Amino acid sequence: MANPGYHDDKAAVLARLKRVEGQVRGLQRMVDDDTYCIDVLTQVSAATRALQSVAVQLLDDHLRHCITHAVQSDDAVESDRIITEATRAIERLVKS
Amino acid sequence: MANPGYHDDKAAVLARLKRVEGQVRGLQRMVDDDTYCIDVLTQVSAATRALQSVAVQLLDDHLRHCITHAVQSDDAVESDRIITEATRAIERLVKS
Amino acid sequence: MANPGYHDDKAAVLARLKRVEGQVRGLQRMVDDDTYCIDVLTQVSAATRALQSVAVQLLDDHLRHCITHAVQSDDAVESDRIITEATRAIERLVKS
Amino acid sequence: MANPGYHDDKAAVLARLKRVEGQVRGLQRMVDDDTYCIDVLTQVSAATRALQSVAVQLLDDHLRHCITHAVQSDDAVESDRIITEATRAIERLVKS
Repeated sequence: MANPGYHDDKAAVLARLKRVEGQVRGLQRMVDDDTYCIDVLTQVSAATRALQSVAVQLLDDHLRHCITHAVQSDDAVESDRIITEATRAIERLVKS
Repeated sequence: MANPGYHDDKAAVLARLKRVEGQVRGLQRMVDDDTYCIDVLTQVSAATRALQSVAVQLLDDHLRHCITHAVQSDDAVESDRIITEATRAIERLVKS
Repeated sequence: MANPGYHDDKAAVLARLKRVEGQVRGLQRMVDDDTYCIDVLTQVSAATRALQSVAVQLLDDHLRHCITHAVQSDDAVESDRIITEATRAIERLVKS
Repeated sequence: MANPGYHDDKAAVLARLKRVEGQVRGLQRMVDDDTYCIDVLTQVSAATRALQSVAVQLLDDHLRHCITHAVQSDDAVESDRIITEATRAIERLVKS
């Protein structure tokens, strides 16, 4: 398949990542300004959750397009391979 | 579909859950014996990771059977519904 | 120190762990009864969050008693050691 | 206390955050270049873990300086307050 699963959501994914970049630059300003530890930590939690939301959107698109495409192709070996690959990606996210 | 996705792995899933139950009972004994906080915490982390592994196995089976089945049925509405449902389950796991 | 940090909360910690054990046994019944994957996953998330709450309570007690005690002892080496140990326990929890 | 707990580690914390910013910009390039979903997800996991490491370092510094300082001040009310505040920050990190 030529296009990644998030192809139709590309602008939205980029906008979310741009926002995460803004949060991480904001964190640098906070640290530079000697902001109180707990306030910095609250923003680290917010940036982490924002990154997790990007991951969930990418996974949703991947299920909806790439995995659906592989299953519909009726190639059981490829279908199996792509599901194993998705499970490993989910595992990395769940355990991080 | 009559059977859940983990049907063929049922014994393995039950064995893993039995092990988690053993870990949680072990935690009760540790607390009852006044075990040092950090050693209890190490075991809480281990039990948490074991539960996450059960979740990853259930998700893998769900992709491999229930979602594959829905996609192959060529019912786009049902396919959509079941993928949205899976994404929400993944989100709960990633964010917990 | 003879007693662990959770000494005064022991009954509450044991009650929480007993509840987690009940959740894990409930999960076994669900799997045994062929409950739909997503419903099982929802309960796995709930049990995981319950275990994380036990960890947070144990950490709070550890800060409030063991770490406070070490800091008040004015033994800088022991104080350092116990803080490094706590940070590692927090890291295992944050990354699991 | 005038300085935050990470005062002596400020350069190291800023360098880590700069690296996370680089990872998030790298993610934008990957999405812009239509990189395969799973490869993007692997990098999202890496950036998430890097943010969690920043959090763990900030917490370690907070225990080592701010909490130690509060406990040594022998002001039990302030000591209590700052430990409750730290526990809540840890909880946000553990549950995200």
